[in-house]
Amino acid sequence: MSNYVIGIDLGGTKISTALSDFNGNVVSQSIIATDAHEGEAAVLGRIIKTVEDVIENGKVDVVQVKAIGIGSPGPLDAKTGIIITTPNLPFKNFDLVSPIREKFQIPVYLDNDANVAAIGEFMFGAAKGTENMVYFTVSTGVGGGAVLNGKIYRGNTSNALEIGHATVAPNGPRCNCGNIGCLEATSSGTAIGKRAKEALESKVETSLRKYKSVTSAEVFAEAAAGDEISKDIIDNALNYLGIGVANAISIFDPEMIIIGGGVSKAGEIVFDKVQEVVNKRCFKNMAEACKIVPAGLGTDAGVIGAVALAIMESK
Amino acid sequence: MSNYVIGIDLGGTKISTALSDFNGNVVSQSIIATDAHEGEAAVLGRIIKTVEDVIENGKVDVVQVKAIGIGSPGPLDAKTGIIITTPNLPFKNFDLVSPIREKFQIPVYLDNDANVAAIGEFMFGAAKGTENMVYFTVSTGVGGGAVLNGKIYRGNTSNALEIGHATVAPNGPRCNCGNIGCLEATSSGTAIGKRAKEALESKVETSLRKYKSVTSAEVFAEAAAGDEISKDIIDNALNYLGIGVANAISIFDPEMIIIGGGVSKAGEIVFDKVQEVVNKRCFKNMAEACKIVPAGLGTDAGVIGAVALAIMESK
Repeated sequence: MSNYVIGIDLGGTKISTALSDFNGNVVSQSIIATDAHEGEAAVLGRIIKTVEDVIENGKVDVVQVKAIGIGSPGPLDAKTGIIITTPNLPFKNFDLVSPIREKFQIPVYLDNDANVAAIGEFMFGAAKGTENMVYFTVSTGVGGGAVLNGKIYRGNTSNALEIGHATVAPNGPRCNCGNIGCLEATSSGTAIGKRAKEALESKVETSLRKYKSVTSAEVFAEAAAGDEISKDIIDNALNYLGIGVANAISIFDPEMIIIGGGVSKAGEIVFDKVQEVVNKRCFKNMAEACKIVPAGLGTDAGVIGAVALAIMESK
Repeated sequence: MSNYVIGIDLGGTKISTALSDFNGNVVSQSIIATDAHEGEAAVLGRIIKTVEDVIENGKVDVVQVKAIGIGSPGPLDAKTGIIITTPNLPFKNFDLVSPIREKFQIPVYLDNDANVAAIGEFMFGAAKGTENMVYFTVSTGVGGGAVLNGKIYRGNTSNALEIGHATVAPNGPRCNCGNIGCLEATSSGTAIGKRAKEALESKVETSLRKYKSVTSAEVFAEAAAGDEISKDIIDNALNYLGIGVANAISIFDPEMIIIGGGVSKAGEIVFDKVQEVVNKRCFKNMAEACKIVPAGLGTDAGVIGAVALAIMESK
């Protein structure tokens, strides 16, 4: 009987693989360096090695493993199992799914980080028990995933939930993608850091000047300490994040919005402002029906999400 | 064997009911006045009468009818079959589904106009053959519906796809809903008319002054005739419609966006501008993978959509 799954969190620095039961209880885990510079074949070999390790250390037979889920940075094609390209991994238009499926003779599913995080939160994290939820990750970039009617929603080209590149400020700052006023250009950690640099290059008085180098962390810290310029930068970024979240509520009518990623770690100031904007911009009944909460999974979110992907897709 | 369904398009002025096969071929149809002033019981009775008529005139037995679909103005709760309230119908918190189901002993499904239009286009209209599509209706208001993975997506409180009340202009005009810069406040026919009135109340020179009363139709006409003020108003409204559509592409990654409703009837000028904005604001691969087209169903769209609802939900 198949009563286990395997989740693989494929990252630029490490590969984390876990054997888990269907309740997300990890039986055995293997974490090794990615060593991406060694190339496609070597990294694939290391991935396969971690799978063999967790099966052996978990004292199970491979026939007891129902499926393998892999979370990877994108862009990738979840339907074909091909990693198109990614900055910190050696894979280019590489079919990662087939060799692993052929090796172990069990179904293998691949999806991008944001979708895997969404599935993890849906199955084992803050969104457990919901049917419709949207996950925002706000860190150096802004991404997302949505579980709709209990299934991850991928869209036509596997690129759904590019919420970081929806326009929230039609005349706002230029985004790296080329567009103007993307949520990523107004509200990512990178955007907050850019606004701080612009302030420092001007003549304004700000306590940010005491730092040698300024990222969003310093701006949050100085905002909390009362620096008006930092408060303005944070308030502006969170206002647009609030618009992005409000639009997701108007569009998806979800039970829950989860905000994860580095910027969300600033805590109350983020969630209070987002909720304020949502209350102003959404229909009252829809705003009240939707909880806006931080991610529930901790440092193992990636591998637990990959476990959840394997469970969801092999149902 | 059940090889027919019945669709009911419930409107403020008329009730249109059709008996159809599973390919959307109408066998018999009954159209009668709603006479909403006669109250709940009378209108319910008239709805039931149309169902009896199409069964009789179609020369089928009621056991050959698999399901009944009803499209109605909202707000309503598709899950419970209750019409909450609607300006032009007598129903208030009225369970419309149960009495019809009890009368005919077949499943009955209720949904709002925009969702029914989306399902109709998906099954028998411009989006036939797609798996993921988003429908925009742009007329006095702006609404929408989405078919995702082949099923209508309703969300948690049956209010999904309130795309008319997603924010596209954070500092834009006030919307009737209370929010600022909703798509409905920038791009509906009503919004275009309002911008024209504001222009007429100012000192600008515009050929719109020749009309006694100005709606979006006159603004489109004068824009086509070269009036600069009208061209500005239309371009501004369509720019924000383009942002709304671009955001829907970034979020849903659909195969198709359909734009229906009165404003879409202006034709090429609408679709050209929306496509231009999408090309500027979306990832190239996602923009190229998504067709943006006018609605394919004509005057019978409401009743054909209700037929499609019955087919989709009874599958």
